[in-house]
Amino acid sequence: MEYIKIDIVMSLGKESIRLHAKLKGKLETKSKIKINNKKTLSIVYTPGVAAVSSAIAENPTLAKKYTIKNNTIAVISDGSSVLGLGNVKALAAIPVMEGKAALFKEFAGLDAFPICLDTQDTQEIIATIKNIAPIFGGINLEDISAPRCFEIEKKLMEILDIPVLHDDQRGTATVVLSALINALKVKKLSFNQTKVVVNGAGAAGTAIAKFLHAYGIKNLIVCDSQGVINNKRKDLNSEKKLIAGWLLEENSQTQTLEEALDKADVFIGVSRANLLTVDLVKKMNKQPIIFALANPIPEIMPDVAKKAGAFIVATGRSDFSNQINNVLAFPGIFRGALDHSVKTITDNMLIKAAENIAACVKKPTKEQIVPKPFDKKVVKAVAKAIKNN
Amino acid sequence: MEYIKIDIVMSLGKESIRLHAKLKGKLETKSKIKINNKKTLSIVYTPGVAAVSSAIAENPTLAKKYTIKNNTIAVISDGSSVLGLGNVKALAAIPVMEGKAALFKEFAGLDAFPICLDTQDTQEIIATIKNIAPIFGGINLEDISAPRCFEIEKKLMEILDIPVLHDDQRGTATVVLSALINALKVKKLSFNQTKVVVNGAGAAGTAIAKFLHAYGIKNLIVCDSQGVINNKRKDLNSEKKLIAGWLLEENSQTQTLEEALDKADVFIGVSRANLLTVDLVKKMNKQPIIFALANPIPEIMPDVAKKAGAFIVATGRSDFSNQINNVLAFPGIFRGALDHSVKTITDNMLIKAAENIAACVKKPTKEQIVPKPFDKKVVKAVAKAIKNN
Repeated sequence: MEYIKIDIVMSLGKESIRLHAKLKGKLETKSKIKINNKKTLSIVYTPGVAAVSSAIAENPTLAKKYTIKNNTIAVISDGSSVLGLGNVKALAAIPVMEGKAALFKEFAGLDAFPICLDTQDTQEIIATIKNIAPIFGGINLEDISAPRCFEIEKKLMEILDIPVLHDDQRGTATVVLSALINALKVKKLSFNQTKVVVNGAGAAGTAIAKFLHAYGIKNLIVCDSQGVINNKRKDLNSEKKLIAGWLLEENSQTQTLEEALDKADVFIGVSRANLLTVDLVKKMNKQPIIFALANPIPEIMPDVAKKAGAFIVATGRSDFSNQINNVLAFPGIFRGALDHSVKTITDNMLIKAAENIAACVKKPTKEQIVPKPFDKKVVKAVAKAIKNN
Repeated sequence: MEYIKIDIVMSLGKESIRLHAKLKGKLETKSKIKINNKKTLSIVYTPGVAAVSSAIAENPTLAKKYTIKNNTIAVISDGSSVLGLGNVKALAAIPVMEGKAALFKEFAGLDAFPICLDTQDTQEIIATIKNIAPIFGGINLEDISAPRCFEIEKKLMEILDIPVLHDDQRGTATVVLSALINALKVKKLSFNQTKVVVNGAGAAGTAIAKFLHAYGIKNLIVCDSQGVINNKRKDLNSEKKLIAGWLLEENSQTQTLEEALDKADVFIGVSRANLLTVDLVKKMNKQPIIFALANPIPEIMPDVAKKAGAFIVATGRSDFSNQINNVLAFPGIFRGALDHSVKTITDNMLIKAAENIAACVKKPTKEQIVPKPFDKKVVKAVAKAIKNN
């Protein structure tokens, strides 16, 4: 059964390669105005454009009025953690960033341009992005590996006067929280009584843990490849130390993922393909909720999970129901940030956005805990949440 | 008379500001494929796109086949020398770079994206451009002040595996040479008997001098704001030292622009508004050729120059005849470079391109020494010249 599912990925992959070879890139840049005569040329370009430049030189805030800065997002990656592929470097990251840029336009009418960086040095990345920021209205960081991504997002949020979001952290966490809000509603569980295991403590896992903690999940265990994150470990970065501090006393002896899953209500995997076995599912509480978000191959295939007893299964895949897809969040997040002149996208705004996404599903069921990616209501609902109070 | 001309600029400027406020930026990015269903989403983006990324990770040269790298040019400025406006900085440079990007599409079908840099430090500029280069097929540097621009272009040509051109240097020089080829043809003068004064030794003036020297102008005097560039001066950068080395013995005592213009056949100004007075024109040989290229206000207005005796007048302006406009060169240069997989755009290629531009005007006259900007033949003629032998 699993083989067939993987074969679907393979065949989609072949189709994708054919399409990319045909299109030779998915994006184009276009002039909004046809330049086919001298007059237009002299207004769009020199000498007329000198007046526009002068005006902005006098008053830099006019850049938002007269230029693409008002609607343009940079989609920036260093290629260090692309999909489930890992550190593929800049060139191989391009198709993913192009796709993301295309989605910004399709879903939120935002112009976006992909930038793939020929460096994976934290300080160089920060300096480079600072240097290219002027033309952009917002910076969407993408597929940058942990723990570097934490420092990069944080520092850029400090030094830039435009909104910055590492989508794999807080974008993912926003959608996961929205899905969990509805899943617990369907299952009739309250946040403070639910035991959640997050497996994976990279960019996504860390941010998910933070959002769940902030939203009231008390019984939260986060595992990385070394097992449960707790205060006894000596190998923790500052983000993981924070997470270790939230561990309940009753979980202080828990060391492995298998132990952590004992009577858990929810498994959230942002780790790797096929990691969640049927035996592990059976350790969990009856009829558990499973979010198997590794891409392109999830921690467990939905049909396998259901057979093992899962009540609700979600993946990152568009070919299964309950797709936990960042496309539910990032277009609206930046649409809202630009429309409401938000310079800093806060966690509180994103948690409110998660509630709004959840509310887009009028009657959540186990087969539909999140809106469909093409639900037109979602972008507006998210954008509404991204504003200063 | 001059006042009216300046007023034309003013009214174009107002019109330009209105247009920019209406468009809110002249460029947009668009997906080449409509993403309005799950299937397309899963091919354009995850999971299907993983196959494309994997393929490129295996074989990085496939990036040119599968991504926008095959047709995308960066238009990059630090805002240090924008049009005739000077150091307006990054934000104020945006409308100009957007315009240039729009022209790349209009004239050569190239997708281009503007990047305006929040640094004017030479080494930081080089590092930043190197870091963002992977997604681009070529780098068009724009409006970077001399002498920093020389080092930046040179270093990037060395370290990048894609074509790099500082358009204000070698792009301008290409078009100026093409115009001079036809002007001297109309005037029936040979290159080696013509006395040329270039006023301005920044990015453009330096490159123009190099191209003219390479093409056979022997009697060449280049002036900057301190007067004639000669070996006695102690304030010369390396580019100016090179130029000083070409000065004929007979010009060794010449110190000022006024002295330099004595019996000159050609004045090429890349300096500043209204610098060439009627009295200065009268110092020149009878019926001189005057290229007054300062933008938006030339060194002398065409009607004033003609009244003072000029035979052929060219400016950078689209509202006069004989527009020496870089748009005649840069679209074809990058079109050729990308079509012919040229990694280094050499001066020899550009000199050949200048000849090809000149040849697009079947019968040059004093009112038409260069093709019209919208002449469809030009891009192809230029592109033909940009190839490895």
